Amino acid sequence: MSKEKLSIVKIGGNIIEDETSLTTFLKLFSTLKGKKILVHGGGKRATHIASKLGIESKMFQGRRITDLETLEVITMVYGGLVNKNIVAKLQALKTNAIGLSGADINSIKSDKRVLKEVDYGFVGDVKEVDYKAIDKLINAEFTPVFCAITHDGNGQLLNTNADTISSQVAIGMSKIYETSIYYCFELEGVLKDINDKKSVVKKINSKTYQELLDAEIVTEGMLPKLENCFDALKKGVHKVNMGNTSMLTNENDNFTTITL
Amino acid sequence: MSKEKLSIVKIGGNIIEDETSLTTFLKLFSTLKGKKILVHGGGKRATHIASKLGIESKMFQGRRITDLETLEVITMVYGGLVNKNIVAKLQALKTNAIGLSGADINSIKSDKRVLKEVDYGFVGDVKEVDYKAIDKLINAEFTPVFCAITHDGNGQLLNTNADTISSQVAIGMSKIYETSIYYCFELEGVLKDINDKKSVVKKINSKTYQELLDAEIVTEGMLPKLENCFDALKKGVHKVNMGNTSMLTNENDNFTTITL
Repeated sequence: MSKEKLSIVKIGGNIIEDETSLTTFLKLFSTLKGKKILVHGGGKRATHIASKLGIESKMFQGRRITDLETLEVITMVYGGLVNKNIVAKLQALKTNAIGLSGADINSIKSDKRVLKEVDYGFVGDVKEVDYKAIDKLINAEFTPVFCAITHDGNGQLLNTNADTISSQVAIGMSKIYETSIYYCFELEGVLKDINDKKSVVKKINSKTYQELLDAEIVTEGMLPKLENCFDALKKGVHKVNMGNTSMLTNENDNFTTITL
Repeated sequence: MSKEKLSIVKIGGNIIEDETSLTTFLKLFSTLKGKKILVHGGGKRATHIASKLGIESKMFQGRRITDLETLEVITMVYGGLVNKNIVAKLQALKTNAIGLSGADINSIKSDKRVLKEVDYGFVGDVKEVDYKAIDKLINAEFTPVFCAITHDGNGQLLNTNADTISSQVAIGMSKIYETSIYYCFELEGVLKDINDKKSVVKKINSKTYQELLDAEIVTEGMLPKLENCFDALKKGVHKVNMGNTSMLTNENDNFTTITL
């Protein structure tokens, strides 16, 4: 018997920060057929509120260092403000949403990142996804909405990359569902020509990916994203889609679909 | 067939604000037998963060006016910081908690309060509790942890009194469970003599309540709380207990139990 389908949609800061974009996206998401999960980051709102609270954003090699004060702001903004507002807006659209961090129902456990060269603070690398617990919510006809926070199982919340949460949750859910990921971002997909926004590579698989790498079409910024996609596919995820939010409609087929 | 038991425990700001009190309480709560729900307020932390953000707390007749900026702080602090930290700490104690606002799973719908004399802003009065949706979580062996935020069903979050959330959720759950409320507060219970903290009135029912009223033993601050208790009891709640957190242990019987 073939598995039932599940869609995991990830949105980033650019959508969350703009009220109109968010409203448009949530309408699209709520009309998306079948079982689904939403994952959101937090964007610059956390940085903005941190700065208002007089907390300095510390960076190392372009990455944020999450000290205790910063973690508190992230928990407030991602887990509270952003997550609860998305849930309330989805309810108004008749999508029975439930907001979650990885601590809720022990859904996503992480290890605090320990590196020799720098202490990133309260940042977690996903260790374990309780896909059976998440499935209890899905089976109760609720739509999980994850913010980018996990926990270590010992009472500590941890700031965690939203892309990683999406792919790790997708890998977990693949044990039950035919799981597709939709990474929504600014571009319409992986581009053949970075200067031509319409030059989307519509299909990528392991073989054509190698060709793109050889032709140096995959840019530095896209490389880790794509490596992450292939990792998820190898671990059981059915399909990964990358593009802007309009890929959730049936009218637009100009986005990138990645398979093994 | 008699109904299964359910405990609804409400804690206030005094417990949440003190790390040691909170840890002690959560240990007690996690050892509490049977099905259970936790409801928490937010306390002075929201006021503190609001003031840091330069948002002035506006009051009218001793009650906070929740303008949009204040609602955002409440959503951050109650829905994010306090709720997610409680959930993570309960998970460490092996209680499979799930943090909720009234928007999540559409559990608590409210009407925005409209009064002629003053606009309290984004404050909600509970209209509808989806006890069946909440029961789906309980049946999945999750422990709901509610913060004091509800929604209007049209995408608007609303600040809502935590005592009211407790009693309204209890009234709803009474359709399925023999539901008891535990209001945890600073005192050991309703006191015969306000100057003697040990003079707890252990049992109150409709008849003895009238006697307490006649003897003017019920103070002004306690009156609305007790009226609220009798309202919940009349609407199906089995029992209401008032005292400090030690009433959750079996060793202490010095608290007030209210029945019809």
